[in-house]
Amino acid sequence: MARKKSLDNGPVLRGRILEEASRLFYERGYAATSIRDIADAVDISSSTMYHHFANKQDVLHAIVSRFMTDFVDATVPVLRDPALSPTERIRRAVCLHIEISDDRRPELLVGNPIRYALNPKQKEQGIKLQSAYHDAVRDTIEEGCRSGEFSVRDVSITTMAVLDMLNGVREWFAPSGPLTRSELIDRYVEIVMTVLGARSAR
Amino acid sequence: MARKKSLDNGPVLRGRILEEASRLFYERGYAATSIRDIADAVDISSSTMYHHFANKQDVLHAIVSRFMTDFVDATVPVLRDPALSPTERIRRAVCLHIEISDDRRPELLVGNPIRYALNPKQKEQGIKLQSAYHDAVRDTIEEGCRSGEFSVRDVSITTMAVLDMLNGVREWFAPSGPLTRSELIDRYVEIVMTVLGARSAR
Repeated sequence: MARKKSLDNGPVLRGRILEEASRLFYERGYAATSIRDIADAVDISSSTMYHHFANKQDVLHAIVSRFMTDFVDATVPVLRDPALSPTERIRRAVCLHIEISDDRRPELLVGNPIRYALNPKQKEQGIKLQSAYHDAVRDTIEEGCRSGEFSVRDVSITTMAVLDMLNGVREWFAPSGPLTRSELIDRYVEIVMTVLGARSAR
Repeated sequence: MARKKSLDNGPVLRGRILEEASRLFYERGYAATSIRDIADAVDISSSTMYHHFANKQDVLHAIVSRFMTDFVDATVPVLRDPALSPTERIRRAVCLHIEISDDRRPELLVGNPIRYALNPKQKEQGIKLQSAYHDAVRDTIEEGCRSGEFSVRDVSITTMAVLDMLNGVREWFAPSGPLTRSELIDRYVEIVMTVLGARSAR
Protein backbone atom coordinates (compact mmCIF):
# COMPACT_ATOMS: atom_id res chain seq x y z
CA MET A 1 0.00 0.00 0.00
CA ALA A 2 1.31 3.46 -0.88
CA ARG A 3 2.45 5.65 2.01
CA LYS A 4 -0.35 8.09 2.89
CA LYS A 5 0.44 11.79 3.21
CA SER A 6 0.39 13.24 6.71
CA LEU A 7 -1.88 15.93 8.10
CA ASP A 8 0.55 18.84 7.72
CA ASN A 9 0.62 21.18 4.75
CA GLY A 10 -3.10 22.05 5.17
CA PRO A 11 -3.79 24.60 2.43
CA VAL A 12 -1.70 22.78 -0.19
CA LEU A 13 -3.35 19.45 0.61
CA ARG A 14 -6.79 21.09 0.58
CA GLY A 15 -6.05 22.45 -2.88
CA ARG A 16 -4.97 19.00 -4.08
CA ILE A 17 -8.19 17.47 -2.71
CA LEU A 18 -10.34 20.01 -4.57
CA GLU A 19 -8.37 19.46 -7.76
CA GLU A 20 -8.75 15.66 -7.71
CA ALA A 21 -12.38 15.87 -6.59
CA SER A 22 -13.37 18.20 -9.44
CA ARG A 23 -11.59 15.94 -11.91
CA LEU A 24 -13.48 12.89 -10.59
CA PHE A 25 -16.86 14.69 -10.47
CA TYR A 26 -16.23 15.88 -14.03
CA GLU A 27 -15.23 12.46 -15.35
CA ARG A 28 -17.65 10.19 -13.47
CA GLY A 29 -20.29 12.51 -12.09
CA TYR A 30 -20.90 13.64 -8.50
CA ALA A 31 -23.23 10.75 -7.63
CA ALA A 32 -20.76 8.07 -8.75
CA THR A 33 -17.81 9.52 -6.81
CA SER A 34 -17.25 8.68 -3.12
CA ILE A 35 -15.16 10.39 -0.45
CA ARG A 36 -13.01 7.26 -0.56
CA ASP A 37 -12.42 7.67 -4.33
CA ILE A 38 -11.22 11.22 -3.73
CA ALA A 39 -8.95 10.18 -0.85
CA ASP A 40 -7.45 7.42 -3.04
CA ALA A 41 -6.84 9.83 -5.91
CA VAL A 42 -4.97 12.23 -3.60
CA ASP A 43 -3.25 9.27 -1.92
CA ILE A 44 -4.40 10.11 1.60
CA SER A 45 -6.50 8.12 4.08
CA SER A 46 -10.24 8.66 4.44
CA SER A 47 -9.65 9.98 7.94
CA THR A 48 -7.30 12.68 6.62
CA MET A 49 -10.04 13.51 4.10
CA TYR A 50 -12.56 13.90 6.95
CA HIS A 51 -10.09 16.13 8.78
CA HIS A 52 -10.56 18.64 5.93
CA PHE A 53 -14.17 18.08 4.81
CA ALA A 54 -17.21 16.86 6.77
CA ASN A 55 -18.74 15.16 3.72
CA LYS A 56 -18.92 15.09 -0.08
CA GLN A 57 -21.36 18.02 -0.15
CA ASP A 58 -18.71 20.08 1.64
CA VAL A 59 -16.15 19.22 -1.03
CA LEU A 60 -18.58 20.19 -3.80
CA HIS A 61 -19.33 23.47 -2.08
CA ALA A 62 -15.62 24.24 -1.62
CA ILE A 63 -15.02 23.67 -5.36
CA VAL A 64 -17.91 25.90 -6.42
CA SER A 65 -17.07 28.62 -3.95
CA ARG A 66 -13.31 28.69 -4.71
CA PHE A 67 -14.01 28.83 -8.44
CA MET A 68 -16.64 31.56 -8.17
CA THR A 69 -14.46 33.63 -5.81
CA ASP A 70 -11.50 33.45 -8.20
CA PHE A 71 -13.76 34.26 -11.16
CA VAL A 72 -15.22 37.31 -9.45
CA ASP A 73 -11.77 38.45 -8.22
CA ALA A 74 -10.47 38.30 -11.80
CA THR A 75 -13.39 39.92 -13.62
CA VAL A 76 -15.11 42.43 -11.34
CA PRO A 77 -12.12 44.77 -10.81
CA VAL A 78 -11.73 44.98 -14.61
CA LEU A 79 -15.45 45.68 -15.10
CA ARG A 80 -15.35 48.31 -12.33
CA ASP A 81 -12.14 50.00 -13.52
CA PRO A 82 -12.99 53.68 -14.15
CA ALA A 83 -9.77 54.13 -16.14
CA LEU A 84 -11.09 51.86 -18.92
CA SER A 85 -13.90 52.57 -21.38
CA PRO A 86 -17.00 50.35 -21.15
CA THR A 87 -16.05 48.81 -24.52
CA GLU A 88 -12.59 47.89 -23.26
CA ARG A 89 -13.99 46.54 -19.98
CA ILE A 90 -16.46 44.30 -21.79
CA ARG A 91 -13.77 43.18 -24.24
CA ARG A 92 -11.49 42.12 -21.38
CA ALA A 93 -14.35 40.45 -19.49
CA VAL A 94 -15.28 38.35 -22.56
CA CYS A 95 -11.64 37.18 -22.79
CA LEU A 96 -11.42 36.37 -19.08
CA HIS A 97 -14.80 34.62 -19.04
CA ILE A 98 -13.84 32.28 -21.88
CA GLU A 99 -10.25 31.75 -20.69
CA ILE A 100 -11.11 30.95 -17.07
CA SER A 101 -14.02 28.68 -18.09
CA ASP A 102 -11.70 26.78 -20.41
CA ASP A 103 -8.69 26.59 -18.04
CA ARG A 104 -10.77 25.36 -15.13
CA ARG A 105 -13.44 23.36 -16.89
CA PRO A 106 -13.65 20.47 -14.37
CA GLU A 107 -14.43 22.93 -11.60
CA LEU A 108 -17.45 24.21 -13.53
CA LEU A 109 -19.03 20.82 -12.88
CA VAL A 110 -21.09 21.06 -16.06
CA GLY A 111 -23.89 18.54 -15.96
CA ASN A 112 -23.55 17.86 -12.24
CA PRO A 113 -26.48 18.38 -9.87
CA ILE A 114 -25.17 21.43 -8.00
CA ARG A 115 -28.71 22.74 -7.68
CA TYR A 116 -29.79 19.64 -5.78
CA ALA A 117 -26.57 18.67 -3.99
CA LEU A 118 -25.91 21.94 -2.13
CA ASN A 119 -27.89 23.14 0.86
CA PRO A 120 -29.72 26.50 0.80
CA LYS A 121 -26.97 28.39 2.64
CA GLN A 122 -24.31 27.04 0.29
CA LYS A 123 -26.42 27.92 -2.73
CA GLU A 124 -27.04 31.43 -1.42
CA GLN A 125 -23.31 32.09 -1.23
CA GLY A 126 -22.88 30.97 -4.85
CA ILE A 127 -25.74 33.20 -5.99
CA LYS A 128 -24.15 36.18 -4.22
CA LEU A 129 -20.91 35.68 -6.14
CA GLN A 130 -22.81 35.20 -9.42
CA SER A 131 -24.68 38.44 -8.77
CA ALA A 132 -21.46 40.38 -8.18
CA TYR A 133 -20.33 39.44 -11.70
CA HIS A 134 -23.76 39.85 -13.29
CA ASP A 135 -24.22 43.31 -11.75
CA ALA A 136 -20.77 44.46 -12.86
CA VAL A 137 -21.54 43.42 -16.46
CA ARG A 138 -24.96 45.07 -16.36
CA ASP A 139 -23.59 48.32 -14.89
CA THR A 140 -20.87 48.44 -17.56
CA ILE A 141 -23.42 47.98 -20.35
CA GLU A 142 -25.57 50.69 -18.77
CA GLU A 143 -22.61 53.06 -18.54
CA GLY A 144 -21.74 52.33 -22.17
CA CYS A 145 -25.29 53.19 -23.20
CA ARG A 146 -25.14 56.47 -21.28
CA SER A 147 -21.83 57.42 -22.88
CA GLY A 148 -23.14 56.52 -26.36
CA GLU A 149 -20.63 53.70 -26.88
CA PHE A 150 -23.37 51.06 -26.77
CA SER A 151 -26.96 51.08 -27.95
CA VAL A 152 -29.24 48.53 -26.31
CA ARG A 153 -33.02 48.43 -25.93
CA ASP A 154 -33.22 46.40 -22.72
CA VAL A 155 -30.07 46.37 -20.57
CA SER A 156 -31.24 43.57 -18.21
CA ILE A 157 -32.25 41.12 -20.92
CA THR A 158 -29.19 41.92 -23.01
CA THR A 159 -26.99 41.23 -19.98
CA MET A 160 -28.60 37.80 -19.53
CA ALA A 161 -28.25 37.02 -23.23
CA VAL A 162 -24.55 37.93 -23.21
CA LEU A 163 -23.81 35.93 -20.06
CA ASP A 164 -25.74 32.86 -21.28
CA MET A 165 -23.87 33.02 -24.57
CA LEU A 166 -20.51 33.09 -22.80
CA ASN A 167 -21.49 30.39 -20.30
CA GLY A 168 -22.51 28.11 -23.16
CA VAL A 169 -18.99 27.98 -24.61
CA ARG A 170 -17.65 25.61 -21.94
CA GLU A 171 -20.16 22.98 -23.01
CA TRP A 172 -18.86 22.58 -26.54
CA PHE A 173 -15.55 24.35 -27.14
CA ALA A 174 -12.73 21.91 -27.91
CA PRO A 175 -9.26 23.36 -28.42
CA SER A 176 -8.76 20.53 -30.92
CA GLY A 177 -11.60 21.93 -33.05
CA PRO A 178 -11.37 24.23 -36.08
CA LEU A 179 -10.71 27.40 -34.02
CA THR A 180 -7.96 28.15 -31.53
CA ARG A 181 -9.05 29.66 -28.25
CA SER A 182 -7.85 33.09 -29.21
CA GLU A 183 -9.73 32.93 -32.53
CA LEU A 184 -12.83 31.89 -30.59
CA ILE A 185 -12.39 34.83 -28.21
CA ASP A 186 -12.08 37.19 -31.21
CA ARG A 187 -15.39 35.90 -32.60
CA TYR A 188 -17.14 36.28 -29.25
CA VAL A 189 -15.83 39.79 -28.68
CA GLU A 190 -17.23 40.68 -32.10
CA ILE A 191 -20.61 39.01 -31.43
CA VAL A 192 -20.93 40.65 -28.01
CA MET A 193 -20.05 44.08 -29.47
CA THR A 194 -22.71 43.50 -32.15
CA VAL A 195 -25.31 42.60 -29.49
CA LEU A 196 -24.39 45.77 -27.58
CA GLY A 197 -24.73 47.88 -30.73
CA ALA A 198 -21.16 49.03 -30.01
CA ARG A 199 -19.84 51.99 -31.98
CA SER A 200 -16.80 49.83 -32.78
CA ALA A 201 -19.05 47.19 -34.41
CA ARG A 202 -21.30 49.56 -36.36
CA MET B 1 -54.41 2.08 0.63
CA ALA B 2 -55.49 3.78 -2.57
CA ARG B 3 -56.63 1.49 -5.38
CA LYS B 4 -53.80 1.11 -7.87
CA LYS B 5 -54.48 1.64 -11.56
CA SER B 6 -54.46 -1.45 -13.79
CA LEU B 7 -52.13 -2.29 -16.65
CA ASP B 8 -54.48 -1.21 -19.45
CA ASN B 9 -54.37 2.18 -21.08
CA GLY B 10 -50.64 1.78 -21.90
CA PRO B 11 -49.73 4.99 -23.77
CA VAL B 12 -51.81 7.23 -21.49
CA LEU B 13 -50.31 5.69 -18.36
CA ARG B 14 -46.82 5.92 -19.86
CA GLY B 15 -47.40 9.62 -20.47
CA ARG B 16 -48.56 10.11 -16.88
CA ILE B 17 -45.48 8.32 -15.57
CA LEU B 18 -43.17 10.59 -17.58
CA GLU B 19 -45.05 13.66 -16.42
CA GLU B 20 -44.83 12.79 -12.72
CA ALA B 21 -41.23 11.60 -13.04
CA SER B 22 -40.08 14.85 -14.67
CA ARG B 23 -41.85 16.86 -11.99
CA LEU B 24 -40.13 14.85 -9.23
CA PHE B 25 -36.69 14.98 -10.91
CA TYR B 26 -37.16 18.73 -11.33
CA GLU B 27 -38.25 19.33 -7.74
CA ARG B 28 -35.99 16.92 -5.84
CA GLY B 29 -33.30 15.97 -8.33
CA TYR B 30 -32.75 12.69 -10.15
CA ALA B 31 -30.56 11.13 -7.45
CA ALA B 32 -33.12 11.75 -4.69
CA THR B 33 -36.07 10.26 -6.61
CA SER B 34 -36.78 6.50 -6.59
CA ILE B 35 -38.88 4.33 -8.90
CA ARG B 36 -41.14 3.87 -5.88
CA ASP B 37 -41.59 7.66 -5.51
CA ILE B 38 -42.65 7.87 -9.14
CA ALA B 39 -45.08 4.93 -8.81
CA ASP B 40 -46.60 6.53 -5.71
CA ALA B 41 -47.03 9.89 -7.47
CA VAL B 42 -48.87 8.20 -10.37
CA ASP B 43 -50.75 6.01 -7.90
CA ILE B 44 -49.67 2.69 -9.44
CA SER B 45 -47.74 -0.24 -7.96
CA SER B 46 -43.98 -0.61 -8.43
CA SER B 47 -44.65 -3.75 -10.48
CA THR B 48 -46.83 -1.77 -12.93
CA MET B 49 -43.98 0.75 -13.11
CA TYR B 50 -41.55 -2.06 -14.01
CA HIS B 51 -43.97 -3.25 -16.66
CA HIS B 52 -43.31 0.06 -18.47
CA PHE B 53 -39.70 0.87 -17.57
CA ALA B 54 -36.79 -1.40 -16.71
CA ASN B 55 -35.21 1.14 -14.34
CA LYS B 56 -34.92 4.83 -13.44
CA GLN B 57 -32.36 5.42 -16.20
CA ASP B 58 -34.98 4.23 -18.69
CA VAL B 59 -37.50 6.75 -17.36
CA LEU B 60 -34.94 9.56 -17.65
CA HIS B 61 -34.11 8.54 -21.19
CA ALA B 62 -37.80 8.41 -22.16
CA ILE B 63 -38.31 11.96 -20.82
CA VAL B 64 -35.30 13.35 -22.69
CA SER B 65 -36.12 11.56 -25.88
CA ARG B 66 -39.83 12.47 -25.93
CA PHE B 67 -39.02 16.12 -25.25
CA MET B 68 -36.29 16.32 -27.88
CA THR B 69 -38.45 14.55 -30.48
CA ASP B 70 -41.34 16.97 -29.89
CA PHE B 71 -38.96 19.94 -29.96
CA VAL B 72 -37.43 18.86 -33.27
CA ASP B 73 -40.86 18.04 -34.76
CA ALA B 74 -42.05 21.55 -33.90
CA THR B 75 -39.02 23.56 -35.00
CA VAL B 76 -37.26 21.80 -37.87
CA PRO B 77 -40.19 21.89 -40.37
CA VAL B 78 -40.44 25.66 -39.78
CA LEU B 79 -36.69 26.14 -40.24
CA ARG B 80 -36.77 24.00 -43.38
CA ASP B 81 -39.87 25.65 -44.91
CA PRO B 82 -38.85 27.02 -48.32
CA ALA B 83 -42.00 29.18 -48.45
CA LEU B 84 -40.68 31.36 -45.60
CA SER B 85 -37.77 33.80 -45.68
CA PRO B 86 -34.77 32.96 -43.45
CA THR B 87 -35.67 35.97 -41.27
CA GLU B 88 -39.20 34.68 -40.74
CA ARG B 89 -37.97 31.14 -40.07
CA ILE B 90 -35.52 32.34 -37.41
CA ARG B 91 -38.17 34.59 -35.90
CA ARG B 92 -40.57 31.66 -35.55
CA ALA B 93 -37.86 29.35 -34.22
CA VAL B 94 -36.92 31.86 -31.50
CA CYS B 95 -40.60 31.99 -30.42
CA LEU B 96 -40.96 28.20 -30.42
CA HIS B 97 -37.66 27.66 -28.61
CA ILE B 98 -38.62 29.97 -25.75
CA GLU B 99 -42.26 28.83 -25.61
CA ILE B 100 -41.55 25.09 -25.57
CA SER B 101 -38.72 25.50 -23.04
CA ASP B 102 -41.04 27.45 -20.76
CA ASP B 103 -44.11 25.22 -21.20
CA ARG B 104 -42.17 22.06 -20.54
CA ARG B 105 -39.54 23.23 -18.13
CA PRO B 106 -39.55 20.16 -15.84
CA GLU B 107 -38.76 17.93 -18.81
CA LEU B 108 -35.64 19.96 -19.55
CA LEU B 109 -34.24 18.58 -16.31
CA VAL B 110 -32.06 21.63 -15.80
CA GLY B 111 -29.34 20.88 -13.28
CA ASN B 112 -29.84 17.13 -13.41
CA PRO B 113 -26.98 14.81 -14.31
CA ILE B 114 -28.20 13.68 -17.75
CA ARG B 115 -24.64 13.52 -18.97
CA TYR B 116 -23.74 10.97 -16.32
CA ALA B 117 -27.02 9.12 -15.85
CA LEU B 118 -27.62 8.03 -19.46
CA ASN B 119 -25.67 5.28 -21.22
CA PRO B 120 -23.69 5.99 -24.42
CA LYS B 121 -26.43 4.71 -26.75
CA GLN B 122 -29.08 6.82 -25.01
CA LYS B 123 -26.83 9.87 -25.17
CA GLU B 124 -26.12 9.29 -28.84
CA GLN B 125 -29.82 9.42 -29.66
CA GLY B 126 -30.19 12.73 -27.82
CA ILE B 127 -27.20 14.20 -29.65
CA LYS B 128 -28.70 13.16 -32.99
CA LEU B 129 -31.91 15.07 -32.20
CA GLN B 130 -29.93 18.08 -30.97
CA SER B 131 -27.96 18.05 -34.22
CA ALA B 132 -31.12 18.02 -36.34
CA TYR B 133 -32.16 21.30 -34.71
CA HIS B 134 -28.68 22.81 -34.66
CA ASP B 135 -28.12 22.01 -38.35
CA ALA B 136 -31.50 23.48 -39.35
CA VAL B 137 -30.66 26.76 -37.54
CA ARG B 138 -27.16 26.87 -39.06
CA ASP B 139 -28.47 26.19 -42.59
CA THR B 140 -31.09 28.92 -42.22
CA ILE B 141 -28.47 31.44 -41.10
CA GLU B 142 -26.27 30.39 -44.01
CA GLU B 143 -29.13 30.79 -46.47
CA GLY B 144 -29.95 34.21 -45.02
CA CYS B 145 -26.32 35.26 -45.52
CA ARG B 146 -26.39 34.09 -49.14
CA SER B 147 -29.61 35.97 -49.83
CA GLY B 148 -28.24 39.13 -48.17
CA GLU B 149 -30.83 39.13 -45.37
CA PHE B 150 -28.20 38.37 -42.73
CA SER B 151 -24.59 39.37 -42.39
CA VAL B 152 -22.46 37.15 -40.19
CA ARG B 153 -18.69 36.60 -40.05
CA ASP B 154 -18.67 33.02 -38.74
CA VAL B 155 -21.89 31.05 -39.27
CA SER B 156 -20.92 28.09 -37.02
CA ILE B 157 -19.91 30.18 -34.01
CA THR B 158 -22.88 32.52 -34.42
CA THR B 159 -25.20 29.49 -34.47
CA MET B 160 -23.75 28.27 -31.18
CA ALA B 161 -24.00 31.74 -29.63
CA VAL B 162 -27.66 32.04 -30.64
CA LEU B 163 -28.57 28.58 -29.37
CA ASP B 164 -26.74 29.03 -26.06
CA MET B 165 -28.48 32.36 -25.57
CA LEU B 166 -31.90 30.77 -26.13
CA ASN B 167 -31.11 27.73 -23.99
CA GLY B 168 -30.10 30.01 -21.12
CA VAL B 169 -33.56 31.54 -20.80
CA ARG B 170 -35.10 28.49 -19.10
CA GLU B 171 -32.64 28.85 -16.22
CA TRP B 172 -33.84 32.26 -15.12
CA PHE B 173 -37.07 33.34 -16.82
CA ALA B 174 -39.95 33.70 -14.37
CA PRO B 175 -43.36 34.63 -15.78
CA SER B 176 -43.87 36.50 -12.51
CA GLY B 177 -40.92 38.77 -13.33
CA PRO B 178 -40.96 42.22 -14.94
CA LEU B 179 -41.57 40.92 -18.48
CA THR B 180 -44.37 38.75 -19.84
CA ARG B 181 -43.31 35.83 -21.97
CA SER B 182 -44.35 37.54 -25.16
CA GLU B 183 -42.37 40.67 -24.25
CA LEU B 184 -39.39 38.44 -23.53
CA ILE B 185 -39.78 36.76 -26.93
CA ASP B 186 -39.89 40.19 -28.62
CA ARG B 187 -36.61 41.15 -26.94
CA TYR B 188 -34.94 37.89 -27.98
CA VAL B 189 -36.14 38.13 -31.57
CA GLU B 190 -34.58 41.59 -31.65
CA ILE B 191 -31.30 40.46 -30.06
CA VAL B 192 -31.02 37.46 -32.40
CA MET B 193 -31.71 39.65 -35.45
CA THR B 194 -29.00 42.03 -34.24
CA VAL B 195 -26.52 39.14 -33.84
CA LEU B 196 -27.37 37.99 -37.36
CA GLY B 197 -26.86 41.51 -38.76
CA ALA B 198 -30.39 41.18 -40.15
CA ARG B 199 -31.54 43.78 -42.65
CA SER B 200 -34.65 44.18 -40.47
CA ALA B 201 -32.45 45.14 -37.48
CA ARG B 202 -30.07 47.50 -39.29
